Amino acid sequence: MEAEAAVDYLVDERSKAQFDIDAMKIIWAGGKHEFEVSDRMARLVASDPVFRKDNRAILDRKELFKNTLRKAAHAWKRIIELRLSEQEASKLRFFVDEPAYTDLHWGMFIPVIKGQGTEEQRKKWLPMAYRMQIIGCYAQTELGHGSNVQGLETTATFDPELDEFVIHSPTLTSSKWWPGGLGRASTHAVVFARLITDGKDHGINGFIVQLRSLDDHLPLPGIIIGDIGMKFGNGAYNTMDNGFLRFDHVRIPRDQMLMRVKQVTREGKVVQSDVPWQLLYGTMVYVRQTIVADASCALSRAVCIATRYSAVRRQFGSQNGHETQVIDYRTQQSRLFPLLASAYAFRFVGEWLKWLYMDVTQRLQARDFSTLPEAHACTAGLKSLTTSVTADAIEECRKLCGGHGYLCSSGLPELFAVYVPACTYEGDNIVLLLQVARFLMKTVSQLGSGERPVGTTTYLLRLEHLLQCPCDVQGAEDWLKPDVVVQLFEARSARMTVACAKSLSKFSKPEDGFMDLSADLVSVATAHCQLIVVSKFVEKLQQDIPGEGVKQQLEALCSIYALSLLKKHLGDFLSTSCITSKQASLANDVLRSLYSQVRPNAIALVDAFNYTDHFLGSVLGRYDGNVYPKLYEEALKDPLNESVVPDGYHEYLQPVLKQRLRTARL
Amino acid sequence: MEAEAAVDYLVDERSKAQFDIDAMKIIWAGGKHEFEVSDRMARLVASDPVFRKDNRAILDRKELFKNTLRKAAHAWKRIIELRLSEQEASKLRFFVDEPAYTDLHWGMFIPVIKGQGTEEQRKKWLPMAYRMQIIGCYAQTELGHGSNVQGLETTATFDPELDEFVIHSPTLTSSKWWPGGLGRASTHAVVFARLITDGKDHGINGFIVQLRSLDDHLPLPGIIIGDIGMKFGNGAYNTMDNGFLRFDHVRIPRDQMLMRVKQVTREGKVVQSDVPWQLLYGTMVYVRQTIVADASCALSRAVCIATRYSAVRRQFGSQNGHETQVIDYRTQQSRLFPLLASAYAFRFVGEWLKWLYMDVTQRLQARDFSTLPEAHACTAGLKSLTTSVTADAIEECRKLCGGHGYLCSSGLPELFAVYVPACTYEGDNIVLLLQVARFLMKTVSQLGSGERPVGTTTYLLRLEHLLQCPCDVQGAEDWLKPDVVVQLFEARSARMTVACAKSLSKFSKPEDGFMDLSADLVSVATAHCQLIVVSKFVEKLQQDIPGEGVKQQLEALCSIYALSLLKKHLGDFLSTSCITSKQASLANDVLRSLYSQVRPNAIALVDAFNYTDHFLGSVLGRYDGNVYPKLYEEALKDPLNESVVPDGYHEYLQPVLKQRLRTARL
Ligand SMILES: Cc1cc2nc3c(=O)[nH]c(=O)nc-3n(C[C@H](O)[C@H](O)[C@H](O)COP(=O)(O)OP(=O)(O)OC[C@H]3O[C@@H](n4cnc5c(N)ncnc54)[C@H](O)[C@@H]3O)c2cc1C
Ligand SMILES: Cc1cc2nc3c(=O)[nH]c(=O)nc-3n(C[C@H](O)[C@H](O)[C@H](O)COP(=O)(O)OP(=O)(O)OC[C@H]3O[C@@H](n4cnc5c(N)ncnc54)[C@H](O)[C@@H]3O)c2cc1C
Repeated sequence: MEAEAAVDYLVDERSKAQFDIDAMKIIWAGGKHEFEVSDRMARLVASDPVFRKDNRAILDRKELFKNTLRKAAHAWKRIIELRLSEQEASKLRFFVDEPAYTDLHWGMFIPVIKGQGTEEQRKKWLPMAYRMQIIGCYAQTELGHGSNVQGLETTATFDPELDEFVIHSPTLTSSKWWPGGLGRASTHAVVFARLITDGKDHGINGFIVQLRSLDDHLPLPGIIIGDIGMKFGNGAYNTMDNGFLRFDHVRIPRDQMLMRVKQVTREGKVVQSDVPWQLLYGTMVYVRQTIVADASCALSRAVCIATRYSAVRRQFGSQNGHETQVIDYRTQQSRLFPLLASAYAFRFVGEWLKWLYMDVTQRLQARDFSTLPEAHACTAGLKSLTTSVTADAIEECRKLCGGHGYLCSSGLPELFAVYVPACTYEGDNIVLLLQVARFLMKTVSQLGSGERPVGTTTYLLRLEHLLQCPCDVQGAEDWLKPDVVVQLFEARSARMTVACAKSLSKFSKPEDGFMDLSADLVSVATAHCQLIVVSKFVEKLQQDIPGEGVKQQLEALCSIYALSLLKKHLGDFLSTSCITSKQASLANDVLRSLYSQVRPNAIALVDAFNYTDHFLGSVLGRYDGNVYPKLYEEALKDPLNESVVPDGYHEYLQPVLKQRLRTARL
Repeated sequence: MEAEAAVDYLVDERSKAQFDIDAMKIIWAGGKHEFEVSDRMARLVASDPVFRKDNRAILDRKELFKNTLRKAAHAWKRIIELRLSEQEASKLRFFVDEPAYTDLHWGMFIPVIKGQGTEEQRKKWLPMAYRMQIIGCYAQTELGHGSNVQGLETTATFDPELDEFVIHSPTLTSSKWWPGGLGRASTHAVVFARLITDGKDHGINGFIVQLRSLDDHLPLPGIIIGDIGMKFGNGAYNTMDNGFLRFDHVRIPRDQMLMRVKQVTREGKVVQSDVPWQLLYGTMVYVRQTIVADASCALSRAVCIATRYSAVRRQFGSQNGHETQVIDYRTQQSRLFPLLASAYAFRFVGEWLKWLYMDVTQRLQARDFSTLPEAHACTAGLKSLTTSVTADAIEECRKLCGGHGYLCSSGLPELFAVYVPACTYEGDNIVLLLQVARFLMKTVSQLGSGERPVGTTTYLLRLEHLLQCPCDVQGAEDWLKPDVVVQLFEARSARMTVACAKSLSKFSKPEDGFMDLSADLVSVATAHCQLIVVSKFVEKLQQDIPGEGVKQQLEALCSIYALSLLKKHLGDFLSTSCITSKQASLANDVLRSLYSQVRPNAIALVDAFNYTDHFLGSVLGRYDGNVYPKLYEEALKDPLNESVVPDGYHEYLQPVLKQRLRTARL
């Protein structure tokens, strides 16, 4: 095999870039400081052999899990040794890039206690959790119930005699099933259960339950715990001990019920605290906002791999003696560049959601609940939109890499497998879109009344105008005007919303209408969410964007994002008479010229994500483009290559070849 | 855990069916005899413990591969013992349901020798291959070239002195890379290489090359072979030894060049035989036709799992004391039922393609090449269409199962991972659609001339009419008329084809136009292929369909197939003025009522596939619907459940919990 040359096969591509890539890196990271932390943590992880991850596809389940425990411990050790800040620590865990019990401990267990525990409970539990003297998980979903949390069957019955709750799993389907970190690592859980006092069911509440002894890690009496088994993909989520959990009348003290909102008194009375229940929504908004941010990471990673490889890969045709780089094919561009644009779009909408979460939190503290339903709908809808698109996009990027994308060493199979459950956890994407649609229907129905639509729904105030305004596109260049595009997306969303509301009004029972038209309602919600992403991208570009050529690139990407959506959902735009076929055809032409504009910048635009080769974990996406020798290197690591004649030859191949099957013992 | 009750949880669902399911089973199987063979082979495999496959997700690569060798040998043994016919043997291998070297031996190596070998060569090699005294693979793709076969770099240089070819890999990228069965099992390969005589390059040809000694299975001198490493998913394609192969001046006798079409004489002259080169296309048509048939199998399998589980799964709402079965949600129906309809649609178009292949073969033998380009375009296009849809559909079915679909025990992750490469192998799906588009453009451009469009393109003869005919839909019921729907799909395809041809004609160099407009050309090809599927479904229903209610069900599915495509590609239909928004809205209403019509029959419609639980390999898709206890059973098999305290606790968890990290050695 040829010696490895220390060259950059993509250097020509990089020299074509028409913008200041360092400035773009900072835009992508969300600021100088963010860039610096992110860059430093990425390098720290990449340079530490303990965090090696190229062997995940060939480790068996036990080795894989043990290895994850090791990495989690090592990460924690480094965090302590280096006295990392919370932001740094979380970035470090992010770059370790392996689902682990710590995700749930830091990402769910702690936030839930923060959000739903009383002052006292927070004082008691959080310090232990912060020091990892206890490890917690989030045990909500059961074998029989995920989406419908109100249908959970686990019971927490108050025993006034002993001042305790009895936690119990009355049926097979009431077993907790799925919680990450539960199966093998966690010592504690926040368990969601039906609160029962005096024979009365008071609905679902959270309870802190110790699961395992802190001495020997054995499950406490009455508790059965296990791992729910292999999940999709090599490595991927199999590093996580998603678990099951059954309770046989397990007793916990009364003060382990999370009582910030609902409380049970010594006598067993259920009382509301003076804390508004709406605060509970805060946690949800927080968690979903992080999922949107993660979507842009996963998507940009896949796009980075596919873009670099598309510049390395050559097939057919000829350009000055070489075959054509596949990135120069229009079909490749029309599949890839909208995803590149989406990565940036999701990045900016994620940034905005972070702001929204802070805004909501401040308002909640001031007991201003006016924006909560809208913020809730925003995060639910954007969680759904961005995760669905990202999941599909990763697989599309894999296909864009041809046969080699199917190898684990391309990094894309694992990225897909580890990513797709984001479409299901924290709210099934369809169930979430139905919630958004309900919110929109309500908003529209209240337009006449005093309720003024807020935030991302304010455009509905201009309903009359939007229902009839023609699209201002005369020539191709008009498609590049942000206000034209935003108004178009507003018009489409408004018209679809109103049409659906009209159809609903024909049903005598609104609930029947909602059931029967739910597929259309999902389309309405999607249109609304796409509008949000488009308009937040446009708003971002109205800010000051430093760096030579940076703004121009982002403007091109913004147009690509919007116009490729238009193309994909053309039926929506035409059937609501938002545009004409002629205008649609112009948009298609503009899209092609935008692809040509982005083409020379493509590699630099993915370089701007600043991913290390370690984090990318892809031979095809290597920074230096040195793909082919590295594919060999990876292949040679497969255990099947340990011997030239495979295990099983004598028993199962030779008898076939030698026609001795009849006598063979198989 | 509760004792397992031997009940059928889906019995109520089954009792709702409004058609003769046994008759439907025969329709699905393609005839009484096909049904009987298929049923018998499926049971044979399911009842044989050697063919167990529920452990694939937890076997490591070497165990997995060894196990596949064992199954392949056992299958071969049973085939011999039971004296199975070719049809039975191929069904048996199908139900073993594990990619193995035998797929390539029977599916590529033998057909290629049959198709490209001379009489003499077939006489020499086929008997050995039929008896499996040699095992062969198909070595075409190289590290650097897949789609562009003409770019392959491996050389076969004729040495007139010794009357031999010298097979050589001149570069790293010329290594053969991907061939299934190559890595560890095969003794022989058909190697595609550049034929070079007297310093002249005569293009690509096939050569039979022995790779390994038949005594000890060691690679012959000058040959380096290995496995290319882990691929997507647990189990899945990792049971296959896709391999790499390098030649260092390996010599083979002249008569091992496949010489049916092109021949090299003793003197090293290259001559054409009297066999028309078009015959080579026959093999391609054959292989792609089998891929379309496989698509309907994979799709129906996923749909069967998702449909049964959707009837078992309950979430929210309430119907007579129970929560709602998720299959009763319109969103679930609008995602699932079009896939159910597609499974049937692909089944019937696959049946038709089989006929087409036989027709083409007979014509070729009679030297009638008139239908070959059309047949080639058909199989290329339908291969692309059906595999792309199926790959996406499997993942959609997985999502339809919520969280539990993400478990390997749902069967869906592996089905997806093992299926998706069908979008890439035997022709990348985009590259294939571009070929179809080229064919369509050519057909349209020749319309004026003497060349009459044939087969599936005859509708273009009515171009004038199709370019202006209005859609005949007045009321909802009109959408159920097959002729209305077929004409609509014809009109859409015709109009898109003509529009694209017009745009192309504006380029001074046609090739530039083809490059620039290729994304639109892909849409044109897709529209044409969808028309083929719709019209073959309609034609099927014009045949005699026995069995009570069977025809009605198929008619409903046919309408669902067509109208859901209309909905999905609404932009095409509206922008070409094939329908009005009003008509589109009617179609949407019809679709909803069709879903209601199919709903009570859904379980029976998937039962009609007649899949055993063994073949389905899915806890969620079990025939008896007994999902929950079985999920537990599968979970408990995970190696992580062997001990309650996980491996690694003492090294990596205890030190964290006990705050002893500083001193720990990680
Ligand atoms: C990798 C992973 C990690 C997880 N981690 C955790 C964790 O740490 N803690 C925890 O508690 N849980 C966890 N979960 C569970 C997760 O939250 C649930 O799987 C999720 O809420 C979906 O619920 P479900 O599985 O019951 O799906 P279901 O609701 O059963 O969905 C099945 C189908 O029904 C449809 N459907 C359901 N309701 C409706 C409706 N009203 N209208 C229309 N359609 C409907 C859905 O769209 C879907 O197509 C995890 C899951 C996964 C996959
Ligand atoms: C599981 C599996 C099994 C296989 N088994 C075998 C086997 O047994 N024997 C064998 O010989 N090979 C086998 N192959 C190889 C397979 O045939 C190739 O991977 C396939 O032909 C695709 O070629 P590629 O990988 O070079 O993709 P590429 O052509 O490199 O594709 C990369 C990207 O470029 C695009 N592209 C390429 N050309 C064009 C064009 N002209 N216009 C527009 N876009 C273009 C593609 O659409 C794709 O997006 C197997 C592959 C897999 C994954």
